[in-house]
Amino acid sequence: MVVQQCDELQMQGIDRVSSTQMGQQIGVPAHTVRKDINCLGEVGDNGSGYDVVKLKKHLEQALGFDEIRNACIVGLGRLGSALMDYEKFLISGFSVVAGFDSSVNRIETIQTRIPVYPAYDMEEVIRREKIELALLAVPAPVAQVTAELLGASGIKGIVNFAPVVIKVSADVQVRNMNVVNELRVLSSLMTLAN
Amino acid sequence: MVVQQCDELQMQGIDRVSSTQMGQQIGVPAHTVRKDINCLGEVGDNGSGYDVVKLKKHLEQALGFDEIRNACIVGLGRLGSALMDYEKFLISGFSVVAGFDSSVNRIETIQTRIPVYPAYDMEEVIRREKIELALLAVPAPVAQVTAELLGASGIKGIVNFAPVVIKVSADVQVRNMNVVNELRVLSSLMTLAN
Repeated sequence: MVVQQCDELQMQGIDRVSSTQMGQQIGVPAHTVRKDINCLGEVGDNGSGYDVVKLKKHLEQALGFDEIRNACIVGLGRLGSALMDYEKFLISGFSVVAGFDSSVNRIETIQTRIPVYPAYDMEEVIRREKIELALLAVPAPVAQVTAELLGASGIKGIVNFAPVVIKVSADVQVRNMNVVNELRVLSSLMTLAN
Repeated sequence: MVVQQCDELQMQGIDRVSSTQMGQQIGVPAHTVRKDINCLGEVGDNGSGYDVVKLKKHLEQALGFDEIRNACIVGLGRLGSALMDYEKFLISGFSVVAGFDSSVNRIETIQTRIPVYPAYDMEEVIRREKIELALLAVPAPVAQVTAELLGASGIKGIVNFAPVVIKVSADVQVRNMNVVNELRVLSSLMTLAN
């Protein structure tokens, strides 16, 4: 969250930020912000706030964001295509180096600067390009089998957009981005608030 | 999570499920599944597992998912359009009744069964159609101002897809779906695992 805030401040040309300002924006007390930042090692706050560039660099190093990690997009329907257009990956430390789809027709017609490959080349390309992360945007019925193939190809982390629970081996991390689940959370918060 | 599993089991035509099976799929112990389910009131588990239809209904009522809530999609670029095509909303208890975009040209050319409106009609349509939830898929620079307008129009919950932190009044709930943040979480898990 704080790294994302630093991104935004940098883009706005702001070079110093206090823990109070950061806390207000994300809705937590200033001391929580300071504690969380200190948790990751010493970073200079001389009483007039943090230097945005230094703070971002510090957090990126502590959390392993300072190396560029290669990612791929699997499934190039509307969602996968939208992800290919997303320009914040590289400035955030991720390089999308491949897209895959099972439809050769789609591979041939898609307009993008990112290299795209047919699904049957997936394992080879992932190994060759040293891809560690996958954005899984395939239809729900093929999500599980595709996730297994990604794990077998050496992928270490999957962001799963398919609206199904996928099961992978213990050395692969999964984060689910499921819009229906988010709507359900909002809906229960609304019910409980009434 | 369990409600989502019930959806999947129903689609596969499976009518009974044990807490062990559910736990295995999502990676938690069976007793945790049982405790969480019991937490929301009494539901019959006669030792041979749960009745999938009854369990889903029970959880939906407890969490307020049994009423259909109206939602809208704000911003109809590639991501917003992909969301409009997503067929699981209605079976999950959400009805997408409107889409909005600031480009009249896009409004006129988009292919969808969902009614679409220019952004300047947003407040009126939200009130008329009793829309409670918004999927915010506008470009980052206009996300904050759009979120404020949604709050002022009576929206109670926002799923924010824009890669910026948005600030809204206390009676509006926000869930962020930010793919870069998910990649960052995976990346730090990978760094910590090494």
